[in-house]
Amino acid sequence: MSYLDQITSPTLLISEKITRANIKRMAEKAARNNKKLVPHWKTAQSHEIGNWAKEYGIKEVTASSIKQAEYLCGQGWDNIHIAFPFNPLEIPRLNFLAANQSLSLQLVNPITTQKLVEGLTNPVGFFIEIDAGYGRTGVHIADFGTIEKILRTATQSDKLKFKGFYLHPGHTYYTPDKAGIYEQSRQALHMLKIKYQSEFPELVTRVGDTPGCAVTEDFGDIDELGPGNFVFFDLMQAELGSCTKEDIAVCLAVPVVDVNFERKEILIHGGGVHLAKDVLVDASGNKNFGEVVYLNETGWTIPSDRSYLKSISQEHGLINASDSLLQSVKVGDLLGVLPVHSCMTADCMGEYLSLEGKTIDHCEGKSQ
Amino acid sequence: MSYLDQITSPTLLISEKITRANIKRMAEKAARNNKKLVPHWKTAQSHEIGNWAKEYGIKEVTASSIKQAEYLCGQGWDNIHIAFPFNPLEIPRLNFLAANQSLSLQLVNPITTQKLVEGLTNPVGFFIEIDAGYGRTGVHIADFGTIEKILRTATQSDKLKFKGFYLHPGHTYYTPDKAGIYEQSRQALHMLKIKYQSEFPELVTRVGDTPGCAVTEDFGDIDELGPGNFVFFDLMQAELGSCTKEDIAVCLAVPVVDVNFERKEILIHGGGVHLAKDVLVDASGNKNFGEVVYLNETGWTIPSDRSYLKSISQEHGLINASDSLLQSVKVGDLLGVLPVHSCMTADCMGEYLSLEGKTIDHCEGKSQ
Repeated sequence: MSYLDQITSPTLLISEKITRANIKRMAEKAARNNKKLVPHWKTAQSHEIGNWAKEYGIKEVTASSIKQAEYLCGQGWDNIHIAFPFNPLEIPRLNFLAANQSLSLQLVNPITTQKLVEGLTNPVGFFIEIDAGYGRTGVHIADFGTIEKILRTATQSDKLKFKGFYLHPGHTYYTPDKAGIYEQSRQALHMLKIKYQSEFPELVTRVGDTPGCAVTEDFGDIDELGPGNFVFFDLMQAELGSCTKEDIAVCLAVPVVDVNFERKEILIHGGGVHLAKDVLVDASGNKNFGEVVYLNETGWTIPSDRSYLKSISQEHGLINASDSLLQSVKVGDLLGVLPVHSCMTADCMGEYLSLEGKTIDHCEGKSQ
Repeated sequence: MSYLDQITSPTLLISEKITRANIKRMAEKAARNNKKLVPHWKTAQSHEIGNWAKEYGIKEVTASSIKQAEYLCGQGWDNIHIAFPFNPLEIPRLNFLAANQSLSLQLVNPITTQKLVEGLTNPVGFFIEIDAGYGRTGVHIADFGTIEKILRTATQSDKLKFKGFYLHPGHTYYTPDKAGIYEQSRQALHMLKIKYQSEFPELVTRVGDTPGCAVTEDFGDIDELGPGNFVFFDLMQAELGSCTKEDIAVCLAVPVVDVNFERKEILIHGGGVHLAKDVLVDASGNKNFGEVVYLNETGWTIPSDRSYLKSISQEHGLINASDSLLQSVKVGDLLGVLPVHSCMTADCMGEYLSLEGKTIDHCEGKSQ
């Protein structure tokens, strides 16, 4: 019996083979450069996939919320880092978690640091998040006043241990000059290391973003790499040049419910609640919410003539179909759709089906 | 103790008062026009909110997938309509459901109709979905060949009962001339009724879209109204003129994790996994992923000077803050965010918290 026989509704497929190859490649790259790889588990959000990762020497992971950290707890991770500016309202949940799990946080201001000094009951580590140009979050690289204040405030508590500096250069997603951004990030973290390592000899620096980690080889004296999306990749990463479409490890299996030969369109059950609404827009303004692959008993193949999701609503997806797909497709068939943003698609779906027909867990836990 | 004391992480708030007022207004409008209101429950997806609706005479609801229908089953609904072109792979699930619940389906081609003829074990009703210009799904209004084929195929089974024609004029969301679209929809359904009512004297016509149902008074001889979003409304509907911002019944409570006074920005825990990524773009190209409201012990107030979410990623949201908000906001505060698309936000969040501090169920059931 094939995994295909289990599918009647939109289902997120995962190729263990491609996932493992993606993890292995990044683990080898980190090892080759003598860096520690601490993947961001906001993409996979899974115990089972975590067990695969452990086989490639991964010992620590990153969560993007305390909810994810709670889910990942108790799975044998040496440390779980919560890579989101810490929310002081969650100190009680943090205390509960930190009683049995080594954790680290991310801090961007002295106010939250002070609240932790007052409220922590168990030891946790912390990184200071640095903004070297992305502009989303973090202490500005030149704002030494804030960095100092966080460090001085933290010393009031024996439970807050400074681990180092974290930088997410998310603008590699938007800027063609990834090498330039990486040079800037390297220099920023290098400068901070030089400045603070006499006081904190064990401090480390970490950089985390898939486009950069996938294409760069020279990480300078950065100590740790924290990419997330590379575990699955997706169409956005393929467009950015981080991967090929063959490296994409997840695909949404969708039922065909209607075919319009005149308009060359295929209507599928698969919309925003399954794929999320991330979109790629080409130079002519055409929208792409996902690309069609052909499912078979052992996985999927990428056709040479492209069919893609031109529009989606809550549950509906409308495929702009190639001639060869139109010739073969039938109502009741299953097609595969490679996602634009795999982290969001996995979060929407809340579980995976392996190509061996096994359900694989996800933090959102709809299957549990 | 206020509901606010329960919140430490992103939480979807619902105002029962506003929700009831929205349902009451639409129910009265339907009654005034002598139409049956069959709301699309893809927005609320909730038993509890269904119980509120029943108090205003609502007896039937609509689901957008068999999964939703399964959730809504056994809650005393006279009928559950699945308003999505039926997926023949789900016939076994349908048969199981139809044993204990009156159901109706939506058909758009004779192929699926034939599969139902062969596979149905319990009676179900069906609507033929008509496309009168939206172009997403449905039999084209002039394609009588397909309509006839569906009807003839269905007569082979005593379990398939034709109920009428369903039309979702979703282009009211994009076209300024809503009255023109409604006139077109009315005429299309009127023509079909005249053509088929001698053969099917009990056939009804149903139209379903919130912008149209909210602003139109003249529904002609349409029998049933099937809007969904009106239960909560959202910023998109306010922009379309279907409601005011005061009518929006749900709002995402989000923790403030950082404030940047120089850039006039507030960083919140609240991103695409909470709000979905629906966006409003103004004439200058500025993006709006949600608007800030101020929370208090009994609900929220809409400030006169607007602050809005200018960007979101998976978990982060960045607010473009008004001067008055900047003056009062602190790290650790909670703010409210009115969603751009409430159906998607509710689907992401999977549960509600009432202003009385009570958890309210949602089909996605993360709380269960």
